[in-house]
Amino acid sequence: MRGLFITFEGPDGSGKSTQINLLRKHLESRGYDVLFTREPGGTPISEKIRKIILDPENKGMNSVCEALLYAASRAQLVHEVIKPALESGKIVIADRFVDSSIVYQGYARGLGEDMIESINRYAVLGEEPDVTFLITLPPEEGIKRKNRGGKLDRLEQENILFHKKVLEGYNNIKGKYSRIVPIDGTLGIDEIHHIIKDKIDFILKGGLL
Amino acid sequence: MRGLFITFEGPDGSGKSTQINLLRKHLESRGYDVLFTREPGGTPISEKIRKIILDPENKGMNSVCEALLYAASRAQLVHEVIKPALESGKIVIADRFVDSSIVYQGYARGLGEDMIESINRYAVLGEEPDVTFLITLPPEEGIKRKNRGGKLDRLEQENILFHKKVLEGYNNIKGKYSRIVPIDGTLGIDEIHHIIKDKIDFILKGGLL
Repeated sequence: MRGLFITFEGPDGSGKSTQINLLRKHLESRGYDVLFTREPGGTPISEKIRKIILDPENKGMNSVCEALLYAASRAQLVHEVIKPALESGKIVIADRFVDSSIVYQGYARGLGEDMIESINRYAVLGEEPDVTFLITLPPEEGIKRKNRGGKLDRLEQENILFHKKVLEGYNNIKGKYSRIVPIDGTLGIDEIHHIIKDKIDFILKGGLL
Repeated sequence: MRGLFITFEGPDGSGKSTQINLLRKHLESRGYDVLFTREPGGTPISEKIRKIILDPENKGMNSVCEALLYAASRAQLVHEVIKPALESGKIVIADRFVDSSIVYQGYARGLGEDMIESINRYAVLGEEPDVTFLITLPPEEGIKRKNRGGKLDRLEQENILFHKKVLEGYNNIKGKYSRIVPIDGTLGIDEIHHIIKDKIDFILKGGLL
């Protein structure tokens, strides 16, 4: 039986990592075989590609080149890790997947959602997430959380513009896919975990996706 | 004034390099500023990508990943080298460009022409060749030339199947673009050079592409 492919999406500071850890523990305590992935990287080839993307020497990198490298790294990760895990019945939890590329590169950086969607249509090798938890919160809130409630400096103020675009991008794709479960990131940690846990337990009991 | 973007296409052994060298000399002797490119590679970032593509360690590379890496390397080459050269009025001669990807990866290796075309539509950053010289010859002829007329061994025999697919692929795209000038590779070197020279001289005199 095919496994379950869960992705987590949302801006930085929305609490994705916390929720992923809680879900992992919950699933593992019930005996499920859970595989966690984070991009870019995750295979020897993907790590080499990641190195090129992140190397400060390569700061003259064209943004289309960058988008293609992200997609290449993803294709190898799906081929070597995600696809075989799903085919052997595992639960795969990915911290960010195609939606992040569409929102960050396509929308916030202005490459266009069509380009990123089109490139990634091939990169995922036919594997679409079954369910995506999209945790959003107001941009000011996300940045405040990151600097632990201190006053925002000039760069963080500027960042708010970018974060607003990211939020707009996520709001844009939210209605496009029925797999996306939108979650209010200002709710408490336990409250969010319960929403996620309930949804996953329902799916695993054979409920509709 | 924008320069001129010339590409050379055709299977290995068709005589592309010989013809490129003759055309370069001809153009340079007339005072034109000519830039030559060959893929993958051509910029520091593209060379790093080329290394990943060619490293025997990476033999487990998924073919979609490979196609995306070729496209990424191309995007950077266009951004750093081809586009600036064309914008400064130079003549750019490329030994293989998108058509090669479509024929070799899309057609001969079976990834599909649609995928390769779609990915590369973005990678070329809007730069399409003005004219493409497509030199073809029967597969047996190409392989014979490479082994200097000796008998074909088993691998070369097998290769013929692949070379036939490549030729089919080139024949397929030949009619699709008016920029493509098909050339019979069994003609003599001088004869081919004259066809190419005449076409380019006509264009440079302000003739229609």
